[in-house]
Amino acid sequence: MYITSLQNPRIKTVAQLRQGRKRRQLGKFIIDGRRETYRAIACGFPISEVFFAPELADEETLEWMDDFADEYSDQVEIHEVIEAVFAKIAYGDREDGVLAVAEYRELTLEEVFERLPKEEAPIVGVIEGVEKPGNIGAILRSADGAGISALIVANPQTDLFNPNTIRASLGTIFSMPICADSSENVVAWLKKHGFLTYAAIVDGAIHYTEADFTRPCAIALGSEAWGLTETFRGAGIQPIFLPMNGIADSLNVSTTAAILFYEALRQRSVHDV
Amino acid sequence: MYITSLQNPRIKTVAQLRQGRKRRQLGKFIIDGRRETYRAIACGFPISEVFFAPELADEETLEWMDDFADEYSDQVEIHEVIEAVFAKIAYGDREDGVLAVAEYRELTLEEVFERLPKEEAPIVGVIEGVEKPGNIGAILRSADGAGISALIVANPQTDLFNPNTIRASLGTIFSMPICADSSENVVAWLKKHGFLTYAAIVDGAIHYTEADFTRPCAIALGSEAWGLTETFRGAGIQPIFLPMNGIADSLNVSTTAAILFYEALRQRSVHDV
Repeated sequence: MYITSLQNPRIKTVAQLRQGRKRRQLGKFIIDGRRETYRAIACGFPISEVFFAPELADEETLEWMDDFADEYSDQVEIHEVIEAVFAKIAYGDREDGVLAVAEYRELTLEEVFERLPKEEAPIVGVIEGVEKPGNIGAILRSADGAGISALIVANPQTDLFNPNTIRASLGTIFSMPICADSSENVVAWLKKHGFLTYAAIVDGAIHYTEADFTRPCAIALGSEAWGLTETFRGAGIQPIFLPMNGIADSLNVSTTAAILFYEALRQRSVHDV
Repeated sequence: MYITSLQNPRIKTVAQLRQGRKRRQLGKFIIDGRRETYRAIACGFPISEVFFAPELADEETLEWMDDFADEYSDQVEIHEVIEAVFAKIAYGDREDGVLAVAEYRELTLEEVFERLPKEEAPIVGVIEGVEKPGNIGAILRSADGAGISALIVANPQTDLFNPNTIRASLGTIFSMPICADSSENVVAWLKKHGFLTYAAIVDGAIHYTEADFTRPCAIALGSEAWGLTETFRGAGIQPIFLPMNGIADSLNVSTTAAILFYEALRQRSVHDV
């Protein structure tokens, strides 16, 4: 099917998926870009439609699209569109002419637990109340690199499949077990399954390199403005801090996450968990 | 002086400082925000003017401005402006009603060397060809936190005092010795002063935790799109890598910088350099 009209009802529906409210209502979200689309389908995300603007694609993307159509045209509807139509549904300025529509697949906390590795000590990232989708995406990317087992979003401020989250995650959101729930439920879940939670707090008591990340544990971070709430205090939760040797008093939340995730990986490599 | 006109020549000049070309021409740049202005003046940056919009300031900023005027009105011209005038010169949406104009103070490589600590092994960050000012600012913030001695910008793609760099650095740009030069000059300078350079490269030979960051050394990173150029190869330069345990093949440049800077700090704390 070749779509040339901005008034095409299908195009109108896709354009609406830029709004979080519409995503929740329709249970669908948008994936921008060839790499991200590929990662989604490779990770088993149910993709229903792909929109492709040949005018915007380079040589490599044209070849990729040919291969993609060969492999997936029986399960995915592929629509060619003109540039103006693509501009209406695409987002930002890095587009390569490929955009997909996928169906929401949110896990529950227990479903995440089932997916955790059984043969080694799992390690879970928890972010509470983080507002910027770009930060959540960046944290997913670092978690992916460091081999974190899952990412839990406590008190979510945005839906998980915000286009900026997907983009900043480079598609790692599709391979990492991820779910959202209230902070109370997340803390209860961590305790139930015997995770020790290391909570990053500016005035935490334990230097982060003194934490034992080789055991089953969680690394919890709060929003840049407010930090972690009171829910992340008490039994089973240890406050850790990063040293600040300069004039500023804190790091960006995604930077803090990356340093902690890679310290965990370092400890686990040394001890071969 | 109370400025109410958008046509005020002083206001026109300040608004022009949003352009890199004008900054270089006039040798001045803009600092947005109270905290950043304070950090600049505390670090001895020559601030010539402060513009203040009382309508935009909260209680705390009003008090801060009183104290600031008491302390600095003999060396800094302070102008009150109406909201519309402030909107013309300010940038972005986080403004607190305070904006300063400061004079460029760029160091040469040798001036940076003079400022390095003498009683301990210095460690220098080097970023080559990084395009986004926000990334440079984020790297400065991590360097500040980890106690890196100086940051060198090789093959700069933007002027050092871009407003987005200052903002993302949270003002740490004013305390960290920083300079820009060609990659050839930077590498020659590192060798001349006996620094071993650890170059972050996706297929580097040495795991980053195996690098010895306790000696006088540099940590070099390239742009996200291109990596480090060939200049960062050869004698005195060791390629290091970060493990990537997921589906993505690289981390963001500012994330990579933060992980390496904090690994250096960890090693230095353990060995008490």
